[in-house]
Amino acid sequence: MTTEKPWTGRFTAPTNQFVEAFTASVDFDQRLYHYDIMGSIAHARMLAKVGVLTEAEQDQIIAGLGSIEQEIEAGTFDWSVALEDVHMNIEARLTAKIGNVGKKLHTGRSRNDQVATDIRLYLRDEIDLIRAELKRLIEGLVDLAGRETDTIMPGFTHLQSAQPISFAHHMLAWVEMLMRDRERLADCRKRVNTMPLGAAALAGTSYPIDRTYTAALLGFDNIAENSLDAVSDRDFAIEFTADAALLMMHLSRFGEELVLWSSAQFDFIDLGDAFCTGSSIMPQKKNPDVPELVRGKTGRVYGHLTSLLTLMKSQALAYNKDNQEDKEPLFDTIDTLKGSLRVYADMMPQVQVKRSNMYHAAKQGFTTATDLADYLVCKGLPFRDAHEVVGQAVRHCIEHETELDALSLKTLQGFSEIITDDVYSVLTLEGSVAARNHIGGTAPVQVRKAIARLKVRLAE
Amino acid sequence: MTTEKPWTGRFTAPTNQFVEAFTASVDFDQRLYHYDIMGSIAHARMLAKVGVLTEAEQDQIIAGLGSIEQEIEAGTFDWSVALEDVHMNIEARLTAKIGNVGKKLHTGRSRNDQVATDIRLYLRDEIDLIRAELKRLIEGLVDLAGRETDTIMPGFTHLQSAQPISFAHHMLAWVEMLMRDRERLADCRKRVNTMPLGAAALAGTSYPIDRTYTAALLGFDNIAENSLDAVSDRDFAIEFTADAALLMMHLSRFGEELVLWSSAQFDFIDLGDAFCTGSSIMPQKKNPDVPELVRGKTGRVYGHLTSLLTLMKSQALAYNKDNQEDKEPLFDTIDTLKGSLRVYADMMPQVQVKRSNMYHAAKQGFTTATDLADYLVCKGLPFRDAHEVVGQAVRHCIEHETELDALSLKTLQGFSEIITDDVYSVLTLEGSVAARNHIGGTAPVQVRKAIARLKVRLAE
Amino acid sequence: MTTEKPWTGRFTAPTNQFVEAFTASVDFDQRLYHYDIMGSIAHARMLAKVGVLTEAEQDQIIAGLGSIEQEIEAGTFDWSVALEDVHMNIEARLTAKIGNVGKKLHTGRSRNDQVATDIRLYLRDEIDLIRAELKRLIEGLVDLAGRETDTIMPGFTHLQSAQPISFAHHMLAWVEMLMRDRERLADCRKRVNTMPLGAAALAGTSYPIDRTYTAALLGFDNIAENSLDAVSDRDFAIEFTADAALLMMHLSRFGEELVLWSSAQFDFIDLGDAFCTGSSIMPQKKNPDVPELVRGKTGRVYGHLTSLLTLMKSQALAYNKDNQEDKEPLFDTIDTLKGSLRVYADMMPQVQVKRSNMYHAAKQGFTTATDLADYLVCKGLPFRDAHEVVGQAVRHCIEHETELDALSLKTLQGFSEIITDDVYSVLTLEGSVAARNHIGGTAPVQVRKAIARLKVRLAE
Amino acid sequence: MTTEKPWTGRFTAPTNQFVEAFTASVDFDQRLYHYDIMGSIAHARMLAKVGVLTEAEQDQIIAGLGSIEQEIEAGTFDWSVALEDVHMNIEARLTAKIGNVGKKLHTGRSRNDQVATDIRLYLRDEIDLIRAELKRLIEGLVDLAGRETDTIMPGFTHLQSAQPISFAHHMLAWVEMLMRDRERLADCRKRVNTMPLGAAALAGTSYPIDRTYTAALLGFDNIAENSLDAVSDRDFAIEFTADAALLMMHLSRFGEELVLWSSAQFDFIDLGDAFCTGSSIMPQKKNPDVPELVRGKTGRVYGHLTSLLTLMKSQALAYNKDNQEDKEPLFDTIDTLKGSLRVYADMMPQVQVKRSNMYHAAKQGFTTATDLADYLVCKGLPFRDAHEVVGQAVRHCIEHETELDALSLKTLQGFSEIITDDVYSVLTLEGSVAARNHIGGTAPVQVRKAIARLKVRLAE
Repeated sequence: MTTEKPWTGRFTAPTNQFVEAFTASVDFDQRLYHYDIMGSIAHARMLAKVGVLTEAEQDQIIAGLGSIEQEIEAGTFDWSVALEDVHMNIEARLTAKIGNVGKKLHTGRSRNDQVATDIRLYLRDEIDLIRAELKRLIEGLVDLAGRETDTIMPGFTHLQSAQPISFAHHMLAWVEMLMRDRERLADCRKRVNTMPLGAAALAGTSYPIDRTYTAALLGFDNIAENSLDAVSDRDFAIEFTADAALLMMHLSRFGEELVLWSSAQFDFIDLGDAFCTGSSIMPQKKNPDVPELVRGKTGRVYGHLTSLLTLMKSQALAYNKDNQEDKEPLFDTIDTLKGSLRVYADMMPQVQVKRSNMYHAAKQGFTTATDLADYLVCKGLPFRDAHEVVGQAVRHCIEHETELDALSLKTLQGFSEIITDDVYSVLTLEGSVAARNHIGGTAPVQVRKAIARLKVRLAE
Repeated sequence: MTTEKPWTGRFTAPTNQFVEAFTASVDFDQRLYHYDIMGSIAHARMLAKVGVLTEAEQDQIIAGLGSIEQEIEAGTFDWSVALEDVHMNIEARLTAKIGNVGKKLHTGRSRNDQVATDIRLYLRDEIDLIRAELKRLIEGLVDLAGRETDTIMPGFTHLQSAQPISFAHHMLAWVEMLMRDRERLADCRKRVNTMPLGAAALAGTSYPIDRTYTAALLGFDNIAENSLDAVSDRDFAIEFTADAALLMMHLSRFGEELVLWSSAQFDFIDLGDAFCTGSSIMPQKKNPDVPELVRGKTGRVYGHLTSLLTLMKSQALAYNKDNQEDKEPLFDTIDTLKGSLRVYADMMPQVQVKRSNMYHAAKQGFTTATDLADYLVCKGLPFRDAHEVVGQAVRHCIEHETELDALSLKTLQGFSEIITDDVYSVLTLEGSVAARNHIGGTAPVQVRKAIARLKVRLAE
Repeated sequence: MTTEKPWTGRFTAPTNQFVEAFTASVDFDQRLYHYDIMGSIAHARMLAKVGVLTEAEQDQIIAGLGSIEQEIEAGTFDWSVALEDVHMNIEARLTAKIGNVGKKLHTGRSRNDQVATDIRLYLRDEIDLIRAELKRLIEGLVDLAGRETDTIMPGFTHLQSAQPISFAHHMLAWVEMLMRDRERLADCRKRVNTMPLGAAALAGTSYPIDRTYTAALLGFDNIAENSLDAVSDRDFAIEFTADAALLMMHLSRFGEELVLWSSAQFDFIDLGDAFCTGSSIMPQKKNPDVPELVRGKTGRVYGHLTSLLTLMKSQALAYNKDNQEDKEPLFDTIDTLKGSLRVYADMMPQVQVKRSNMYHAAKQGFTTATDLADYLVCKGLPFRDAHEVVGQAVRHCIEHETELDALSLKTLQGFSEIITDDVYSVLTLEGSVAARNHIGGTAPVQVRKAIARLKVRLAE
Repeated sequence: MTTEKPWTGRFTAPTNQFVEAFTASVDFDQRLYHYDIMGSIAHARMLAKVGVLTEAEQDQIIAGLGSIEQEIEAGTFDWSVALEDVHMNIEARLTAKIGNVGKKLHTGRSRNDQVATDIRLYLRDEIDLIRAELKRLIEGLVDLAGRETDTIMPGFTHLQSAQPISFAHHMLAWVEMLMRDRERLADCRKRVNTMPLGAAALAGTSYPIDRTYTAALLGFDNIAENSLDAVSDRDFAIEFTADAALLMMHLSRFGEELVLWSSAQFDFIDLGDAFCTGSSIMPQKKNPDVPELVRGKTGRVYGHLTSLLTLMKSQALAYNKDNQEDKEPLFDTIDTLKGSLRVYADMMPQVQVKRSNMYHAAKQGFTTATDLADYLVCKGLPFRDAHEVVGQAVRHCIEHETELDALSLKTLQGFSEIITDDVYSVLTLEGSVAARNHIGGTAPVQVRKAIARLKVRLAE
C-alpha cells in the first residue's frame, strides 16, 4: 500500500521523521474506524444522489469500504503512521483496492468535517452504552433498597451520628444522583447528534451536496448551521466530559462510603471476596480495592476535563492542529466510565448488609435528640428553646456516659417539666424513622413509595 | 441584638475566636438575603397551612421578615460574624423584633435544607439574567452580520489563509456557540429548579409538612425526592459552572480573534476608543483591554469549576462543612459571566469593520486553490489528483512570487491540460464565496438565510 | 485629586464607564500599597544616584510617598476606580501633593515592571509568614508526638487495620509532609526574589538606570536577565500556588483523618469544644467544622492553580491585560494558606488523645499477622509460604470469631508445626511495634530519635 | 508459570474476572521493570549483608533477576494480568526459575515501599533526560540568538506594536523561561531522590534491615524518615507534574508566537517544510502543525496535574488503592515533555528568520514614541507631560496617515517648542534599540553580554 501523503504537491522537502510520528494520530484514532467507514458510505451515497458519483462508482466505493472494515476487524489491516490518521489510512487502502474511483470519495469534504462527524457518531453510541450501564447500576441499587427498607442505620452529617435513617433511603440518595447523570447525558446527546459533515475545510464546498440526505442516512437529528463552527466546535466533547466528571464525583462519594463501611470501625457491609484483594505482606488483609480504585479514577476524569477546556481556550477559528488532542481524553473518559459503572453494577447486588451492626451504631450518639426537641415543640415550647433544653440533656448524658432513653422521667423533667412518660416512644429508632413521613423523608412507607416512583421513571 | 449561637446547649467551652471568624460565611452569603427571606416566608405560610403556626404567628413572622429585608436594603442591618451566616443573622433579628414567635420559624427545617433552597432560588434568577445578556450579545452579533454579509475576509485554519469567507459568516460562527450556551443553561435551569426544603437536616422532619404547597409558593418545578441527597447535592452548582466554563471558553476565542484583528499586522477591525486603554509609558498605545481581560477571566471560571469538583470529591453523605465552600466560586462565576457578557454586548455593535483590509488579505495566500481543484474535478480529474496538480501550481507561484489568478492560461495548462479559460472566474474571491451555496456554507445568500433562521430561533 | 488618566493624549473618545470599572484593579490591588511605595522609593533613590533626579527632588518624592502611606493606613486615602490601579492612584496623589516633581517618578519605568516588582516583594514577605506558621504547626505536632510515643493505634492501609503503630509515628508522618512544604517554599522564594524593575514596558529604558543599586535597596537576590521575560513572567506566582496546592492537599489528608477519628465509630480523639460547632436542628451535634472546612478549602487552592495556568497558556509576549487576573487567585491562596495553617496550629496542641480506644482498636483485625509470618520466616519458611500459612490461620479465626493470640498452641501448630510457644510474644501489640526498630520504623525508640532529628532540622 | 496470587490464604472465593482486569496495573507499570529489578537486586544484597539471605541465595536471586531482565528486553517475557502488576510478575517468574529461594526476596519489604522506590528511580532518570533535552533546546535558541542580535523586530504588548527590539532578545526571553524550568527540575530531583524502601507495608519491618546500605547501592541521597509517609507520599510526582505544567505553558507561549509569526499577516519566519504538513482539501496549505500540537498538548499536562492533585485529596493514611492511578498521568507527562522538547529542539535551529519583514513591521505603529517622550524629558519636561505631548503627536499622525519621523520639524514644534532637529536620530529603530543599554535591555551590546553569561550558566 502506498503511504504517500495526499497533500505533498506544494512541498519541497519531506516531513522530518520524528515529526511524522509526533503528529500522527493513527495509534489512537483507529478506534473510530467503524464510524469513519459509516460516514464515508453515507457521503458516497449522497454524492451519487446529487450526481457527483455514478451509481457504479458509489457501489465500488461501498464494497471497498465494506471489505476494509472486514480487514480491520480481522486484524489484517496494515496501519501506517506515515498516513497520519484513520481517515487517510482507510482512503489510501480504498484506492489501493479499487483504483482511481477511490480518489473521488473525498470530493466535497475535508478531514476537518470528517473527523468531527466520526467522533460524534462514536460518542453517540457510547453515550447510549453508558446510559444502559447506568440503568443497570440503578436497578441494582433499587433492588437492594427494596430488600432493606426497614434496615435502620445512623444517618451522618459531618460524619457525626445525626438521626436514624433507613439503609434503603441511603441507597436511594445514590440513585437520585445517578438519575440526574442519566438526564444530563440525554441532554448532552441532543447536542452531540448534530452533523458537521458538509462544512468541508471551514467554509462549505462548491459541490451541490445534500446535507439533509446525509444526515438522514446517519441518523443525525440536526445539521450544523455554520461551517466555521462545525469544524472547530468541540463543545460536545467538553460537555460530555463535564457530565462524566459529575458522574465520577458521585461514584467517588459511593466509594468513600463503601470503604468507610467496610472498615473494622464501621463494619456495616461486606463487599465479598470476589471484589477485594489481599496484601503481599500482611496475610490478614482483605482490601476494598474496587471502590478505592474507582475513587482514584475520579482524578483521571477531572483531569481530562481540565485538559479539554485548556485545549480550546483562546483558539482562533477555525480548525487548528491543537484539536487532535481532543481524542485521547475523550476516549479514556469513556473507557473509565464504562469500566467503573460495570464494576459497581456487578458488585452492588452482592453486597452483604450487616443489619445488626448498623442498628447498634444508630443507637449510639443521641440520634433521637431532634425527636425529643420536636416532642417539646408539640408540647408548646418554641423550637429554639426546645433545642437548648435537649442540648443540656445531651451534655448531662455525655458527662454520665449514658443515653437519652436511659434517663429516668424525673431526670428528664429536670430539664423541662412539660415532659411526661409518653416521651419514651419518640426516643426509639423505629419511632424516629417512621415519623419522617412525607415525600422525600426516610420513613419506610415513604421509601417504598419512592421505589415505586423510581420504577416508573426508569421504565420511561 | 443577641449574638448567641442557637446550638450551644451541649457545649461547655466557647468557640475559639479565630475559629469563629474562620468558619463564618456571613461576609459572602449575605448576598442571599432576599432568597432567604423569600424561602422563610413560604415556609411560614406552609407551617400555618398545616397548623404548626397560627395565622397570627404567620403574619407576625412575615411582617418581621419584610421589615428585615427593608433594613438590609437600607444598609442599616447589623451583620454579625458570631451569628455565622445569613440564616442565623436574619433569624436572630426576627426574634429580636417579634419575640418568641420568631423562634418558631425554624420548626421543621434545618440550615442544611434552607441554604440549599436559597442558593437554588438565587441561581435560578441569575441564570435568567445571564440568558438575557447572552441574547443581547447574540442580537448584536446578528445585526453586525446583517450589515456585513457581502464583506469578504480570509478564512483561516491553522492561522494560515485557507479560503475566502463572509465576515458575517464568521460572526454567525460565534453566534452558534452562544446559542448552544443558551440551550445548555436552559437545560441546567431545569435541574436547578428543584426544591430541597423539607429535607431538614438529612432525614426529613416529623412535622406534618406540605412540600407541594411550599414548592408552589416558590415556583419550584420539582421536589427533591430524597432528603439525604437534597441536602448534600451540589450538582446544580457544578453543572452551571461547567456551562459557564464553556461559555467563557467561547468568549476567550472571540477575545483572541478580536486581539489579533486589532493588531497592526491584521488590522481588520477597530474596537473604538471607549473600549480601549493606553499605556503609562508608551504614548502611542491603544490596547484592546476588554477582549484581553475577558480572555484572562476564562482562567478564573475554569478554576472555579476545578474548585467545586474537588470540593465534592469523596464526600461521605450527607451534609459536611466542606460545602460552605460552594458559594464563593459560584458567586464569582456569576459575576464574571454577567460582566463579560455585558461588556461584549456593549462593545460589539460599535466595532468598526475595515472591509478593504480584509478583502486585500483574502486576496493573498492562494485562498482559491481549493476552487481550482474543484474545477479540475468537474472536468473529470479525481479529487486526489486535482489536489496534487494545484499543489504544484501553488509551489510555482511561491517560487515566482505571484498569485494563481495572475498565471497565464498557458502556464496553468502546463500543470493540467484540461484547464480552459473559464478557469479565471472560479479564482475570484466573490466566485469562491458564492459557490459554497448550501446550508451552513459561506455564500452570502446562505448567510442571509441563516440570519433569518436565527431571528426565528431567538424569538422562540 | 485629579482622576485624569495619564495616557489619554492619543485618544479621541473617553472610556466607556462600565469598561472603566470592569478593567480597573484598584479594588483588589490596593493591598500592594506598601510594596508599591517601597519600590517607588528605591526607584527614586536610584534615579537620584544616576542623576535623573536631583537630591531635592528625591527627598520631596520620598516624603510625599511616606505621607501617602500614612493616609492609606489611616484609612483617609481616597481610592479612585477611574485611576485604574494602585500605582496610578498613588502617583496621582503624589503629584497632587508635591506638584510637577511627582510626574518625574515614572521616569525609566512602566507599570509593567512596577507591578511585577510589587507582587514579588509582597509574595516574598508572605512566604516568610507562611513558613513561620508552618513551623508553628510542625512544632505543635512534634510536641504532641513527644507526649505520645508509646501510644499504640491501628495503622491502616485501604482503611483496613494493617499493623499496630505509635500514634506519635502517625503525627510525624504529617510532619514530614509539612517539612517538604517548607523546603519547597524556600526553593520557590529563591525564584520569587528576582527584580524585574528596569525592564520598563518590555525592552528596557533609555535612561542610565542602575538596576544593581535598586536591587540592593530592595533586598533582591537577582536581577531579571531579560526585559521581555521580566514583564511577562508569572512563573513565580504559579510555582507558589502549586506549592500551596500540595500543602492544602496535605491539610486535606489531616482533615480527613481528624474527621474520621472524631466519629463515634473511631472515637480516637476529641477536638475540643472551642474548635467545633453545633447544629441548628440537632441538639446533640458537635461537628468537627475546622478540619472539614480546611478540607473543603483545598478545592479553592486547586482552582486557583488551574486559573493561573489557564491564564498564561498561549500568551504571546510580552505583557497582556490578561495578566491583571494573576492577583486575586494569588491573594486568596495566600489568605487561605495562612488561615488554614493558623487554625490547625491553634487546634492541634489541644487535641485530646483517647489512648485506650486506640489500643482497643489495634487489638482487632489481626494486626500482628505479619509478625506471625515474619516469625515463621525466622524459623526457616520462605516468606511467601509463611504468608500463605498465616492467611489460613486468619481465615480460621474469622470463621470462629476469635483472634490469633487466642488460638491454642496446638491449633497454631495445625497450620505450621514449626510454631512453638515463643510465638505469643510476637503477637502482642507492644512486641510488634517495638520490633520495627530501624530508621523510619514505628518502634518508640526510633520515634524518639526521629523527634530529636526533627528538632535539629527545625533549628536550622 | 504459576499465576496464583500470593495473598489468597485468607480468601474463600476467587476474584471476579472483570475485577481482576480492572484492578490490574501490569499493562502500564511494566514500563518500570528495569527499576523494579534494580531495586530488588539492591534489596537482596542488603538482606545478604544483614544475614537474612546467604551469599549463595543472594547470587541465585541476582542471576535470576538478570535473566528475567533479558527476557523482558527480548520480548519473550509472558506478562500476566492475573499477577496484577510488574512486581508480582517478576517475583513469580523468579520463583519459577530458581525455586523456593525466590520466595525469600520479598522478606522485609512490601509492594507499598517497592513501587514507591521503583517510581522514584525511574523518575530520577527521566528528569535527567528531560533536563538534557531542555539544554539542547536552550543551546539551539542561544545559537539562533547569536546569529540575530542586530535583527530588529517590533516588540509587542497587548499584541500592539510597542517598541523595537532585537529578535535575539526575544529568543533569550524564551531561554530565561527554560532556564527556570531546568532549575525547578533540579530542585524537584532533590526530593525525588529519597528512598522509601524499608517502610514495608506502612510501619517498617521486624527484620534487621540496613537502609543506609540499600540507599547507597541505589544512589539515593536521602532515606525517607517516616514509614507511613514513605508509602503514601506522592508529592514528588505532583511536584514534577507541576514543573512540567509550567514548562508546557512556556512551550505553548512559544507555539502561539511561532504560529502567529508563520501567518501571512506577520510573515516573520518560515518553519521549514520538514516541520509542517498540508491539507487534505486545500492544496496551497502549509500548516505549522508542530507548534500547534505542542500548544494543544499543554492541556494534557495541565490535566494530569489536576488528576494527581485530585487523587491525593483527602486520602487517609497510609497506602490506598487509589494510588495506583498515579502512574499513567506521570508516564504520559514524561512522554509528552520529552517529545515536545525534542521536536522543538530539532525545529528551532532550522527556522528561517525573515529579517526585512520584521524590520518593516517595526517601522509601523509609532514604536519610537517612547523615545520621543524620553527625549522631551531630557530637555526638561516631566515624564507625564512628555507622554501627553507625544500622545497628541501620534493622534495627529493617525489622522494624517503618516509616521512620527515623517513629520516636519515645524509640525513637531507645534506639539512642543523645545523640540530641535536632533530629534530625528532618536526616532530611528536602531537608535531606539541601542539606547536600551543596561543589563536586561534589548541593546545588541547587552544581548551579546547576556548570551555570554548564558553560556557560562549552561556550562555549570
